[in-house]
Amino acid sequence: MSDHPSAGPLRIRDVRITPVAFHDPPLLNTVGVHEPFALRAVVEVITDEGLHGLGETYGDAAHVARLRAAADLLTGVDVWHTSELERRVGAALSADTSTAGHGMSGMVTGSSTVHRVASPFEVACLDIRGKALGRPVSDLLGGAVRDRVEYSAYLFYKWAGHPGAAADDWGPALEPAQLVEQAHRMIDGYGFTAIKLKAGVLPPEQEIAAVHALREAFPALPLRIDPNGAWSVETAVRVGKELEGIIEYLEDPVTGIDGMAAVAGEVAMPLATNMCVVAFDHLRPAVAADAVQVVLSDHHFWGGLDRSRTLAAICDTFGLGLSMHSNSHLGISLAAMTHLAAATPNLTYACDTHWPWKRPDEDVVTPGALTFADGAVAVPTAPGLGVELDREALDRLHEHYLACGITERDDTGYRRRFEPGFDPSPPRW
Amino acid sequence: MSDHPSAGPLRIRDVRITPVAFHDPPLLNTVGVHEPFALRAVVEVITDEGLHGLGETYGDAAHVARLRAAADLLTGVDVWHTSELERRVGAALSADTSTAGHGMSGMVTGSSTVHRVASPFEVACLDIRGKALGRPVSDLLGGAVRDRVEYSAYLFYKWAGHPGAAADDWGPALEPAQLVEQAHRMIDGYGFTAIKLKAGVLPPEQEIAAVHALREAFPALPLRIDPNGAWSVETAVRVGKELEGIIEYLEDPVTGIDGMAAVAGEVAMPLATNMCVVAFDHLRPAVAADAVQVVLSDHHFWGGLDRSRTLAAICDTFGLGLSMHSNSHLGISLAAMTHLAAATPNLTYACDTHWPWKRPDEDVVTPGALTFADGAVAVPTAPGLGVELDREALDRLHEHYLACGITERDDTGYRRRFEPGFDPSPPRW
Ligand SMILES: [Mg+2]
Ligand SMILES: [Mg+2]
Repeated sequence: MSDHPSAGPLRIRDVRITPVAFHDPPLLNTVGVHEPFALRAVVEVITDEGLHGLGETYGDAAHVARLRAAADLLTGVDVWHTSELERRVGAALSADTSTAGHGMSGMVTGSSTVHRVASPFEVACLDIRGKALGRPVSDLLGGAVRDRVEYSAYLFYKWAGHPGAAADDWGPALEPAQLVEQAHRMIDGYGFTAIKLKAGVLPPEQEIAAVHALREAFPALPLRIDPNGAWSVETAVRVGKELEGIIEYLEDPVTGIDGMAAVAGEVAMPLATNMCVVAFDHLRPAVAADAVQVVLSDHHFWGGLDRSRTLAAICDTFGLGLSMHSNSHLGISLAAMTHLAAATPNLTYACDTHWPWKRPDEDVVTPGALTFADGAVAVPTAPGLGVELDREALDRLHEHYLACGITERDDTGYRRRFEPGFDPSPPRW
Repeated sequence: MSDHPSAGPLRIRDVRITPVAFHDPPLLNTVGVHEPFALRAVVEVITDEGLHGLGETYGDAAHVARLRAAADLLTGVDVWHTSELERRVGAALSADTSTAGHGMSGMVTGSSTVHRVASPFEVACLDIRGKALGRPVSDLLGGAVRDRVEYSAYLFYKWAGHPGAAADDWGPALEPAQLVEQAHRMIDGYGFTAIKLKAGVLPPEQEIAAVHALREAFPALPLRIDPNGAWSVETAVRVGKELEGIIEYLEDPVTGIDGMAAVAGEVAMPLATNMCVVAFDHLRPAVAADAVQVVLSDHHFWGGLDRSRTLAAICDTFGLGLSMHSNSHLGISLAAMTHLAAATPNLTYACDTHWPWKRPDEDVVTPGALTFADGAVAVPTAPGLGVELDREALDRLHEHYLACGITERDDTGYRRRFEPGFDPSPPRW
């Protein structure tokens, strides 16, 4: 087949890893508050033939160091050989037992280091394969089963602005009415048809009141609430009973598989998680305990797009629902999430995304490839991920990274600067 | 990307389905005895561009009718769109509730009709994708993690020859010494380094004696025994205790998940199955009951190569071992099995194959692509499956099919012709 231009290996020649930072509002969660900049790392994979592929992942220093250690071993790997890619990442990290650099500020610490590090390289390899084939990444995942992927309006309690700075454009959100206003603005702008509230910030009664206010303002939209494990089993059961018939699922009301199982036995709605089931090792005990009914997948820690499809198949096989988790992210991740969701038949919930919280002019991809309409992103049909790196923008966001002084996401430490006694230890209520 | 020759869709233009038959010796199992011919169907998929892909599956009439019904709906499907392929197969068979035509003579009847029918089309589409890319199918499954795939010596009790015909070349095997001789011949010819005995044919004491004789003759080789559910739980536990430390796993000693779980609780060795877990729906109850410790995958009924990789990942996730099942098959299936096994990291047992029971001059693929050395088949590196259809041979084996008068595998009916009172109902012992 030497007459075929795409025949023969597509071997990795070079890898570039660029940490970037972009402005982030003071969004509150149970472990603290978002710092003024969110960190990501952009991974570029280049083959011998000069094909480029993109991946995006966490930007925490410890994670970036792991990415670099892995990258050093990837030269010569064929972009189709995912197993070999993972093997080399595993070899690079075999002595790494640190739990730093999970990218989630302590909220999720049990994910697989190898899968978390391999993920952006796998995505970049898929991008290259797609470009070599002239096909979108969704084609490499079994084919899109939908041409648009629905996302949810992701509401946050927030301060008016970062301390010492002026109020941001979104303003404060600490009262139900302010959250309703936030939801209106987000839905007006993006057309979302599902709402998620990041909870675990205020005493449960206030958050229940917020959900009721949202239900009243948006009677037809599915609602979810996610306190990131802030509650005791007793509190979770109480909240679960109060919100029966009102929310479509209750996300991580408590920490741990045992705690979730205890809650699941007492409440009517499905329990969802991106905290107690974040690696393949967690599935067996979670299924055995019937601890969760919905898994929020996330290709950034589940090992990439192909492994996320495997997770989806496991959920289908074991009777679990499937949704999708998000951290603050840029356009490469949004493209990857959209291809994955498009090619995952049983991903039936609207996916999470932090997208609206990002400034429109801050991204590393050329604008236009990803647009929201009616709460959904059209699945890119251009080759690969369908997004192009904007090198000028990459440089600019890398400058932000160098200048911002943040090297590790630390929502707790940031909040303690203004509230020294803040204690995020669960259960908070 | 219109400048790229492989860009754009690779749509199915035509499908050809050719039932074939090849000579099969009188191999005994618990439901009867193999008929003089084994049936298969060869599936050819042709794209608009004239690319050809191959698949192989069961040749039972009811199955061939389903293949044809499905084929009628496949025109225009892109060979990368596995989800759409499955959807169309499902649509073609939505009214089909028959349990006929499972291709296994009543030994396995619970597999998914859609997955069984979709499988050869999926394999053919992978063959086409590989040819279009100039890559072996293993590359499309995450990449080969080994360059050779080990198979096991698959021993059978057998009659000297088919009734009314002369003894065949292998001669009779009803005594331990004859099985040892059969094993020697098979291992001398192929170099196998593991042995499987098809059991459930003679009273358990005789089969235990055969295993002891094999252990004595081949002290270093892993042994397995598979009575296809012929035993009661009590018998299975007794045999399991007698063979402790001697066999690597005990395959389907009894029928059903409950029965297997009862045995598993009493014996030391892992229990394996290709009978009580043959579809994704069976995994959840089997895992919950801890009924089996090894699943024998089989892409012919698990929905193709990609779904078989998913099965492998599920086994890995839920702590199950993984081996591979075989029916009487030709070279297209051997190629597909070899690519799949090569790309499946946790497939750590030697795979089953009926290959040595087939006449060397009877196949549908051009000789030479698949050869055994030291019990293993080298993973083909040519594009696609790496095998080419021998059209003259296909015609010849199709003539066999037309002439042999067999349209449905019926080991029980064939045996009853010579032994009218034969009753295969489990438990036989
Ligand atoms: Mg969450
Ligand atoms: Mg078996």
